[in-house]
Amino acid sequence: MNKQFDVLVIGAGPGGYIAAIRAAQLGFSVACCEFSAYDDPAGEPRLGGTCLNAGCIPLKALVASSELFEKASHHLAEHGITFGGVNIDVATMQQRKEAIVTKMTAGVQFLFRKNRITLLKGRGSFAGRTDAGYRIMINGKDGEEELLAQKVIIATGSKARQIPNIAVDNVCICDNEGALKFTEAPKKLGVIGAGVIGLEVGSVWRRLGAEVTILEVMTSFLGAADESVSREASKLFLKQGLHIKLGVRIGQAKQTANGVSIAYTDDQGSEHILECDKLIVSVGRTPYTEGLNLEAIGLQTDERGFIPVNDHCATAAPGVYAIGDVVRGPMLAHKAEDEGVMAAELIAGQKPHLDYNSMPWVIYTTPEIAWVGKTEQQLRKEGHDYKTGQFPFAANGRALGLGDAEGFIKMLADATTDEILGVHIIGASASDLIAEAALAMEFRASSEDVARTCHPHPSLSEVMREAALAIEKRALNM
Amino acid sequence: MNKQFDVLVIGAGPGGYIAAIRAAQLGFSVACCEFSAYDDPAGEPRLGGTCLNAGCIPLKALVASSELFEKASHHLAEHGITFGGVNIDVATMQQRKEAIVTKMTAGVQFLFRKNRITLLKGRGSFAGRTDAGYRIMINGKDGEEELLAQKVIIATGSKARQIPNIAVDNVCICDNEGALKFTEAPKKLGVIGAGVIGLEVGSVWRRLGAEVTILEVMTSFLGAADESVSREASKLFLKQGLHIKLGVRIGQAKQTANGVSIAYTDDQGSEHILECDKLIVSVGRTPYTEGLNLEAIGLQTDERGFIPVNDHCATAAPGVYAIGDVVRGPMLAHKAEDEGVMAAELIAGQKPHLDYNSMPWVIYTTPEIAWVGKTEQQLRKEGHDYKTGQFPFAANGRALGLGDAEGFIKMLADATTDEILGVHIIGASASDLIAEAALAMEFRASSEDVARTCHPHPSLSEVMREAALAIEKRALNM
Repeated sequence: MNKQFDVLVIGAGPGGYIAAIRAAQLGFSVACCEFSAYDDPAGEPRLGGTCLNAGCIPLKALVASSELFEKASHHLAEHGITFGGVNIDVATMQQRKEAIVTKMTAGVQFLFRKNRITLLKGRGSFAGRTDAGYRIMINGKDGEEELLAQKVIIATGSKARQIPNIAVDNVCICDNEGALKFTEAPKKLGVIGAGVIGLEVGSVWRRLGAEVTILEVMTSFLGAADESVSREASKLFLKQGLHIKLGVRIGQAKQTANGVSIAYTDDQGSEHILECDKLIVSVGRTPYTEGLNLEAIGLQTDERGFIPVNDHCATAAPGVYAIGDVVRGPMLAHKAEDEGVMAAELIAGQKPHLDYNSMPWVIYTTPEIAWVGKTEQQLRKEGHDYKTGQFPFAANGRALGLGDAEGFIKMLADATTDEILGVHIIGASASDLIAEAALAMEFRASSEDVARTCHPHPSLSEVMREAALAIEKRALNM
Repeated sequence: MNKQFDVLVIGAGPGGYIAAIRAAQLGFSVACCEFSAYDDPAGEPRLGGTCLNAGCIPLKALVASSELFEKASHHLAEHGITFGGVNIDVATMQQRKEAIVTKMTAGVQFLFRKNRITLLKGRGSFAGRTDAGYRIMINGKDGEEELLAQKVIIATGSKARQIPNIAVDNVCICDNEGALKFTEAPKKLGVIGAGVIGLEVGSVWRRLGAEVTILEVMTSFLGAADESVSREASKLFLKQGLHIKLGVRIGQAKQTANGVSIAYTDDQGSEHILECDKLIVSVGRTPYTEGLNLEAIGLQTDERGFIPVNDHCATAAPGVYAIGDVVRGPMLAHKAEDEGVMAAELIAGQKPHLDYNSMPWVIYTTPEIAWVGKTEQQLRKEGHDYKTGQFPFAANGRALGLGDAEGFIKMLADATTDEILGVHIIGASASDLIAEAALAMEFRASSEDVARTCHPHPSLSEVMREAALAIEKRALNM
């Protein structure tokens, strides 16, 4: 007889592994299948998906290393710290990154054992539905296995979008995966796409010495972020030496003896050739559904490749949920995680819901960018009457002490009710400061609520309070 | 005729200057007097009080410099960053610190001008009360001036407590002021008092190469902090090489040819002599009321030297408020600020109130320590039925990426209602992470509220959410 599970999770990325853990906590028998996208050298699947293996986690390790290198190279003298010439051995930096990734992915394996989740090594594929549950085939290295699951959570994630005629080999022309594996800093690095990944990865290699040129098809920069933040970011990145060309048309990319040459047309219509050692293609990600055989249970993807779901991540097939990058909404690991928890709790008969408007966004550049809620341009477009408060890190003692005093926090609140509608940060520790704002929005806090809450001195969090005070034009330190 | 003001603020420290600004925002004519405790070389008073001149701000500048030095000396190799021998020029470090202090104190002068606050250079002293208001004498360098104020806010702050027979000269034997001004790192540094200032300043000079011994009379370490945090801190500081001796009796301190020798008896009764280049005395602070002549308006200090006030910082004299270190409650800059805002708003007829239980505490060691609300030992003593959730930074991908994965967040919640009663952090960015917890407590949030709020991945703030989840034994990543 085939193995049977209450819940089968397809994919062990951040959405899937969290869904599996939550389902196990709720008392279900749970299995999670993962194929070998990120096999370790011994052929074992490395859990954690793109996030742990080729996204968030390795990237942030490189961000930390490269920020330290930049600080050591340029910003220690003002503290009185001097030394001989600074060098970075990229191989050691990469080993450190790999060690962190290995630790984290092994951590997921540990969590699976602790929570008695059965790990199935192979690609999950729907074979049909019977009265006894969903029939799923697991296609692994060692053959095929069929099992039966009452409920299924699809968490197959996404993959890098490709550009026609520019073939990614992850040696010379790379997507997010290869871009994190360079064994030395390229002298000249080309990046196609000025989105989150392009900016983050481009910044890493710029700090390590690369001359970075980012080509972006869109004419506006960071259109998803608040317009004030995008403007500030554009200014700061330019100062850092990132070359960002907006409104370009990408032409032919050719491998050359020394790397790659990319033809492009700039926003004035002039034609250029960008010669570089390495090229990163980061033009977004597309949902990954290959091999799922959704048709077997009567599902199909939409015109953009996503699996259609309702607000509760339920598909049209009863008891089948889909979460994370493979469904609508922002492709963010924490969004996938929260959907995973929600799906598991729905299966358990609980009544969870998610407020997508309270989910924070983060871009790990220097300084970091983070926001939650609506941008000013969205509010204007909606005809929403709002108030604005903004306060610079340059007027904050802690930021000056740290030597990280660029940027600001901007808060938007309803003109009548004072309810916080959005909080936008560009500055030091934005990724952590945004947590307070997300909690405030979950509580539908007014700006006065934040303004009246004691914030420690001296801390970067005071900038949040001052931005809230600025809404009523009563910031204290400006 | 004498000058008349609606509001006179005595003292331009963080409590006083903020009170003056808030009163001015509310439309009052405001003066603030400050005598020359922190004169600049030209004899101009430097505003901002102890916090800006000899406390928070200069200390945090040195914290940042010394942390970078320690990182450069010991923690860059793992990132692959190498260089010749690292040196620190303490003079340059101190110049950077001074520049920050100057910028911040000048900023307060700017804010005074912007808000049309009259700065009176001199010591404020009560001369009596008439039907027309309070008579105040301002004793400055250039003589004495009398003025009339309808309302008065006393914000005279505190000064370092002295130990009998150990005379502070701020050259060899120093309080907080001299301790931040060493022109080179002492080889051997003695610190009397393992409180916040002793630990912060001791840590600065340890990072810069001093062998630091801290002598503490109390037998328990960091008794104000949660017991789990104190235990973890003790372990980490020991690992860093801070020598902390608890339960000692301090004997004679003698200046020697090379520095200072301090006799002390350890907790076993054995006698020792600690020889050091410099000695820092940091045994707390006492309220500063010298020269106020409180008797003239019928006020007197209590047995500990504080000016008695009610929950709204009102003294027994109508229209006279006292705020900050000179009154009961924790000696924290943000507590003084919030009391200053409250006093100004009360004068304007508003109905503000402060929740002292929601005020965060921070200790700027490495890692940082921060908390808000009750400690576990307090709850136990009160017989309060509570639940505990704790989560380590070592299981957080961002902390691992940063290489700052020591410590944890611990959350305490009511066993029945789930209301958050306290949050205790030892770890990276504790001073900023605590802001979310303070807001949660202001909202009387339950641990589930925090657990259900989306936190960005990967960020240190996820540890807060996991601690909240751990309360119901459903942390996801542990």
